Amino acid sequence: MVHFELKFPVRYYETDQMGVVHHSNYIRYFECARNGMMAALGLPIEVAEKELHIMIPIISVECRFRLPARMGDTLTVTADIEKMPLAKLYVKQTVRNQDGQLCAEGQVVLGFINSETFAPVPCPQAFLDILQKADA
Amino acid sequence: MVHFELKFPVRYYETDQMGVVHHSNYIRYFECARNGMMAALGLPIEVAEKELHIMIPIISVECRFRLPARMGDTLTVTADIEKMPLAKLYVKQTVRNQDGQLCAEGQVVLGFINSETFAPVPCPQAFLDILQKADA
Amino acid sequence: MVHFELKFPVRYYETDQMGVVHHSNYIRYFECARNGMMAALGLPIEVAEKELHIMIPIISVECRFRLPARMGDTLTVTADIEKMPLAKLYVKQTVRNQDGQLCAEGQVVLGFINSETFAPVPCPQAFLDILQKADA
Amino acid sequence: MVHFELKFPVRYYETDQMGVVHHSNYIRYFECARNGMMAALGLPIEVAEKELHIMIPIISVECRFRLPARMGDTLTVTADIEKMPLAKLYVKQTVRNQDGQLCAEGQVVLGFINSETFAPVPCPQAFLDILQKADA
Repeated sequence: MVHFELKFPVRYYETDQMGVVHHSNYIRYFECARNGMMAALGLPIEVAEKELHIMIPIISVECRFRLPARMGDTLTVTADIEKMPLAKLYVKQTVRNQDGQLCAEGQVVLGFINSETFAPVPCPQAFLDILQKADA
Repeated sequence: MVHFELKFPVRYYETDQMGVVHHSNYIRYFECARNGMMAALGLPIEVAEKELHIMIPIISVECRFRLPARMGDTLTVTADIEKMPLAKLYVKQTVRNQDGQLCAEGQVVLGFINSETFAPVPCPQAFLDILQKADA
Repeated sequence: MVHFELKFPVRYYETDQMGVVHHSNYIRYFECARNGMMAALGLPIEVAEKELHIMIPIISVECRFRLPARMGDTLTVTADIEKMPLAKLYVKQTVRNQDGQLCAEGQVVLGFINSETFAPVPCPQAFLDILQKADA
Repeated sequence: MVHFELKFPVRYYETDQMGVVHHSNYIRYFECARNGMMAALGLPIEVAEKELHIMIPIISVECRFRLPARMGDTLTVTADIEKMPLAKLYVKQTVRNQDGQLCAEGQVVLGFINSETFAPVPCPQAFLDILQKADA
């Protein structure tokens, strides 16, 4: 339905003393791709927060680490939305290195809350419209 | 079998512009509790790496975010090992705030590799002995 | 005038592929000690932000790295205020390991801004009172 | 002598509850530009570490924070080497937003150590050659 890719190099501070990217950073890479997708769709997260008064907190994440990424690698991180969100948004994600090898894959589930009351709200219509247009 | 708790305050830089702890940090908190547990068991991770030539990379993580932690909170992070590891080590983890409210919970699966060859190895006997002693 | 110390272990994710704590983390350790000091003085940073509508952004930092901290180290981080703040607050900071060896030292200069208008304001009287009491 | 620029967007997890990029991240941005420069010069840091057995730890950093960067900003980070390194390498650095506004500026001093003995060494000839070629 929506597929997005973001490419960037590993940052030195993301490595740990095992000599590879620390696992927590893949969770952050996932977010980078999701936010890049939002911006590409015309609804950057910071605009959603300020203008739609919507925050999109994460409800759960699962990630399987396949092959360590290393300093010098250029990573491609993907975010895929496969079905229209109702109360929840499901995003499939992968991280691959420059050789196309899968470093990590997972799924993130997000919710929608009002940024002032913090109460759960359904997926805002503006975002549904954008997804429908992207899917057409 | 083994239960460990670690307590520490939220750090300011761990918050994000939603005004709460960024979700990726719970993954890091999990690690803090696991490494605190290793140290408490008498086999600190850096000793395992240097003396046993074993690294314990993460294979997968799943985490459900229940209630946002905030600056000012003092968190208790737990790590529980419920069965003896063979090729894989399963750790159940939670993060609670000072009121005992569950902020996040999840499971981490770890493997064992030789720190020079990066080849998978079974759980080292020294670690099994420690777990058995802790369980007795 | 005010001296504060905070002690905590190095976290694994703070190390990098040089096998030591990544330099950027000392800047974060400095902040932990400053915020620990604020809490100990009775004016936690999150209370200042919410109740006094004051934010205390950093204006400049300088840090000299003396000896790398490592996984397994327990660090003591200090924050010292030596003169009453006017528009700016000067904090001297050090990081030492469990052997008392100096890992990093520096100075941080902070300002005061209104958390709604982001306009610079003088040091709030509540904070001056606290410092004077601490100094007495 | 050598001027390098790297451009990338702010990442959400780099913001804090003040609603702006946490100050420690500028120190990390500086590093990204330095390592980008090394790669552009043909001597990526991970190659220097593995093939030249040289690490380039940071000796000191100073940074002045001018204007907060925010989510949605695209930053340009610069690294400038103005004189040939002997025992120390001096790098001037800036971070600007998409409007050319200066967010942060500073100077980083680095040293050279043997990656096995950790003993200080002079700037490796391979790096001097590269700088001289870049300067020609």
